[in-house]
Amino acid sequence: MPGVPPARFAYLGPAGTFTEAALRTLPAAARGDLYPMPTVAAALDAVRVGEVDSAVVPFENSVEGSVATTLDELATGDPLQVVREVLLPVSFALLARPGTSLADVGSVATHPHAEAQCRRWLTRTLPEASMTLVSSTAEAARLVGQGVHDAAVSAPVAAGHYGLVPLVDGVQDNEGAVTRFVVVSRPGPLAPPSGADRSTLVAYIADDHPGALLEILTEFAVRGVNLTRIESRPTGMGLGRYCFSVDLEGHVADARVGEALSALKRVCADVRFLGSYPRADAVPPTSKPGTSDLDFTDAAGWLARIRAGSPS
Amino acid sequence: MPGVPPARFAYLGPAGTFTEAALRTLPAAARGDLYPMPTVAAALDAVRVGEVDSAVVPFENSVEGSVATTLDELATGDPLQVVREVLLPVSFALLARPGTSLADVGSVATHPHAEAQCRRWLTRTLPEASMTLVSSTAEAARLVGQGVHDAAVSAPVAAGHYGLVPLVDGVQDNEGAVTRFVVVSRPGPLAPPSGADRSTLVAYIADDHPGALLEILTEFAVRGVNLTRIESRPTGMGLGRYCFSVDLEGHVADARVGEALSALKRVCADVRFLGSYPRADAVPPTSKPGTSDLDFTDAAGWLARIRAGSPS
Amino acid sequence: MPGVPPARFAYLGPAGTFTEAALRTLPAAARGDLYPMPTVAAALDAVRVGEVDSAVVPFENSVEGSVATTLDELATGDPLQVVREVLLPVSFALLARPGTSLADVGSVATHPHAEAQCRRWLTRTLPEASMTLVSSTAEAARLVGQGVHDAAVSAPVAAGHYGLVPLVDGVQDNEGAVTRFVVVSRPGPLAPPSGADRSTLVAYIADDHPGALLEILTEFAVRGVNLTRIESRPTGMGLGRYCFSVDLEGHVADARVGEALSALKRVCADVRFLGSYPRADAVPPTSKPGTSDLDFTDAAGWLARIRAGSPS
Amino acid sequence: MPGVPPARFAYLGPAGTFTEAALRTLPAAARGDLYPMPTVAAALDAVRVGEVDSAVVPFENSVEGSVATTLDELATGDPLQVVREVLLPVSFALLARPGTSLADVGSVATHPHAEAQCRRWLTRTLPEASMTLVSSTAEAARLVGQGVHDAAVSAPVAAGHYGLVPLVDGVQDNEGAVTRFVVVSRPGPLAPPSGADRSTLVAYIADDHPGALLEILTEFAVRGVNLTRIESRPTGMGLGRYCFSVDLEGHVADARVGEALSALKRVCADVRFLGSYPRADAVPPTSKPGTSDLDFTDAAGWLARIRAGSPS
Repeated sequence: MPGVPPARFAYLGPAGTFTEAALRTLPAAARGDLYPMPTVAAALDAVRVGEVDSAVVPFENSVEGSVATTLDELATGDPLQVVREVLLPVSFALLARPGTSLADVGSVATHPHAEAQCRRWLTRTLPEASMTLVSSTAEAARLVGQGVHDAAVSAPVAAGHYGLVPLVDGVQDNEGAVTRFVVVSRPGPLAPPSGADRSTLVAYIADDHPGALLEILTEFAVRGVNLTRIESRPTGMGLGRYCFSVDLEGHVADARVGEALSALKRVCADVRFLGSYPRADAVPPTSKPGTSDLDFTDAAGWLARIRAGSPS
Repeated sequence: MPGVPPARFAYLGPAGTFTEAALRTLPAAARGDLYPMPTVAAALDAVRVGEVDSAVVPFENSVEGSVATTLDELATGDPLQVVREVLLPVSFALLARPGTSLADVGSVATHPHAEAQCRRWLTRTLPEASMTLVSSTAEAARLVGQGVHDAAVSAPVAAGHYGLVPLVDGVQDNEGAVTRFVVVSRPGPLAPPSGADRSTLVAYIADDHPGALLEILTEFAVRGVNLTRIESRPTGMGLGRYCFSVDLEGHVADARVGEALSALKRVCADVRFLGSYPRADAVPPTSKPGTSDLDFTDAAGWLARIRAGSPS
Repeated sequence: MPGVPPARFAYLGPAGTFTEAALRTLPAAARGDLYPMPTVAAALDAVRVGEVDSAVVPFENSVEGSVATTLDELATGDPLQVVREVLLPVSFALLARPGTSLADVGSVATHPHAEAQCRRWLTRTLPEASMTLVSSTAEAARLVGQGVHDAAVSAPVAAGHYGLVPLVDGVQDNEGAVTRFVVVSRPGPLAPPSGADRSTLVAYIADDHPGALLEILTEFAVRGVNLTRIESRPTGMGLGRYCFSVDLEGHVADARVGEALSALKRVCADVRFLGSYPRADAVPPTSKPGTSDLDFTDAAGWLARIRAGSPS
Repeated sequence: MPGVPPARFAYLGPAGTFTEAALRTLPAAARGDLYPMPTVAAALDAVRVGEVDSAVVPFENSVEGSVATTLDELATGDPLQVVREVLLPVSFALLARPGTSLADVGSVATHPHAEAQCRRWLTRTLPEASMTLVSSTAEAARLVGQGVHDAAVSAPVAAGHYGLVPLVDGVQDNEGAVTRFVVVSRPGPLAPPSGADRSTLVAYIADDHPGALLEILTEFAVRGVNLTRIESRPTGMGLGRYCFSVDLEGHVADARVGEALSALKRVCADVRFLGSYPRADAVPPTSKPGTSDLDFTDAAGWLARIRAGSPS
């Protein structure tokens, strides 16, 4: 965006987390102002009150921080809009102060989620090292920089922040794991359909009868809209009252997505639409015959004709 | 319809059938021209070529004639439109020449369907009488008028046509049975919604995969459209290729009915819409929350807003 | 069945109908006793009271007689069992007395259904001939034999009964049409699964709420049981109270069919099972992953283990 | 369990967390040995290797720790069994060293989730206090005990562990929030049905086609089994490959639950059953007509009869 002032980004901090790494994949971040925030709530509120333009927060399969918190914070409070997603391979580095060798590592710090994902590697590689769990992988790196621990399992991006160097890269037990972040702004015009979009919403069920979720899913399925994530979430009014947090293939401008969302609006107590945005993996939607925009246009024309009394 | 020329009606004959009785329940029939036709096909073709304005044919639970024929004749050929339905209680009369007493009846004629519905009464009342099955109840009455048989089980309306009188009225084994007829015209403007309408259509499935019918029914169910009749019909291209003949609650002008029909149009090989018309029993549609016209209007407004980027 | 007495068959008469032709395709009919009956009800009652061993009646896409009557007669009264089906190509003959040429034919008789299926041929071939509609194609042939009419459109089998010869064979407007008959006996042991079976049943819905039919179809669909015919039928307690007459792929001995039928029994007001029998076209059932007998056996073993507390 | 040795429990530590509070609601915990563990994985592994008899871990709507981690740890590795659940109202205490008054509090420590749930209260009550987020509410209490911070927002149970007293009880922004924990053991005989049970499982979908989730939910819905929680979870083989973590009403010994689980086993790539156990809230399952154990027994008897050829 040449000519515009640098964008201001909040993100789930501290500096050096995977969330920062996700943020740094955005071209606009290169010349933007980046503000680490202590919590997801604080990052989102910074957007709401206009202190920043956007926030980057973990959204699925997080390696630190809580996705549940993000879901709940987006579902309540002043409306926000998801404008972009970032996928990041789950790949940790073992960071240490310069000059440290693997044999020198007697104590390791990291976040519990990172520990869970690297346990086999750590047990195999550093069987004698003590393990300290802290509030983020970046905090672990900071403590190593201060000399409290010998090494940190953290995001590679943390090295520069805390004067560390990677002893080992690509530390993780499972190849191929990916974590997902979203970029959130105040509501505004949607990006046009890209041909490979995702949409996110929260549906509040009207009453918790058996089959309520099935009814909601059927509204999507009959219109050929595939879901890529679903979670039931308590609404904070006691367990048993639920909403559903949903990602779906397609853009709200698509006819089938629009009709499905309208249907949800009709049958749910409430629907909070959180945005349509390009998929980071650029995978186009699966298709079901009869659900293209052209199919909807043709059918609308046919309906208009039969309502006017023309033969079908 | 004051000031207009008398309406011309074809109906499944001969004169004196239940179909004529159904036709005579229409106010316009009182001063119209009534033409009995030998077959349903002939009655419908008389409408198609403009020899008559409308035809009355049996449509459900027929006591004579074949409903299957009606379904098939409406599903193919030049389009026609169902503009009205007539419900008639199934109630036969035992007709005889004046002066005949029950004890005189040694031979009875009727149509096989009528025989099936009156068998217990006939066995109990006329255990010694011989039974002859003919092509319609009116034909039975005609033969009695000619002296070929002593009595006919037929529609009461046949008495006047063939110079007979009712020996017994209300002859049937099951109380409460009802038969249904439709009034069919050339396509034209639909009657506006009455608040208690029925719509009729034929849906041709795209391919005969398992679950095809379930998919079609789900399109109705998710939109709260209740069906009152469904029949799978072979399409004449060999058993195994099917269409579905369907009656549903509501008018094509209703938002939920319109969206359901559009959906069918999208996912079926073809849909032939046969009309929306007031239910003879004036039963309003069952309702499902979230499917009123107002619900659809509200949801459309909401969708327009979120597509424009407003908070939902 | 060597060594057993000749089988006695009732069928929808009179002699010379398509139903007789269907019956004559059965090997056992060659040396059996064949009794034409005036109505479907009479044919079925002859089975019920033991006057005959089996009855052959029209069941789908009939060219004469009423399938609706068959459905209703099987759905009520003492239970009967469908033990076999017969498919017959719809192919009429124009029969006349020996020595008649096509140019001699000034009057034709037939049944209304046959007339409907041959109308274009008749209009093209015998544009000047008068047409009389009678109660069966066999009756038409009988009347030609008596000299009342010049020719009959009827089943080829009628020629022998009434001393007629075919003037033209293969008289029908649509190639490929097929009609279906069933062989009905008193209840008894079922034929074992053949690998390509069909089952027939009637399901009475508990109450006529919207979606009742969808619920019934879902019970089949989740278990991978495909339907080949479905018709809603009024139960005789007034229009609006319905049962569903259904044909499905597979044998009641199949695990998936058994579970689906048990489910129907649980959720319907009543279910009348009418039999499992080999398909005349020998088409094996379509399959859905996870619904073979082996899949059911494996799952039952797994369930038993987890109920006993073993790891799943 | 009189006469048995004291039970050994692992739980998500450190001492003083809400998980400890959940554990202490169990009668057996009063005389058992309680071992705080640094991570959910460590707590569950302690059960797997037999170091303890059971573990208590957060499972839904957690106020600290990650439910996602619990779900993933139970879904993989050696099988474990959920034997009990504990519901705990979300209610924090503001803890401080004895002698501290509210006016003395210049610095507060807590876990990010707790901060999110008490933010409005904290802003209103301690607008000037600095906030430090640490890895658990118990760690916050420990740091207050050491004099690092003035007060901690933590579970009331932490006070005794770290020599603190409650300055304020019932600190939370939303009344009525509840968090849920499960007690996990090695696989063994299930508790018999209590009349108000819950069952937990993980279903791995065979392939990620549109509608896969709908198919799974339909298996439950047709059998009247209501779900109380559902989450799609990536399987660790890249985003896009999903499993579903599900809680349902009822016990695997219930006929309808057993048939639904068998169905899942048939149609899913794999199903991991995690246990049936009494609901902490003792809410009996919602019922759908036709799905009681007696209904299943009756239907099974009927099926056996019709398979044997008896009239239905």
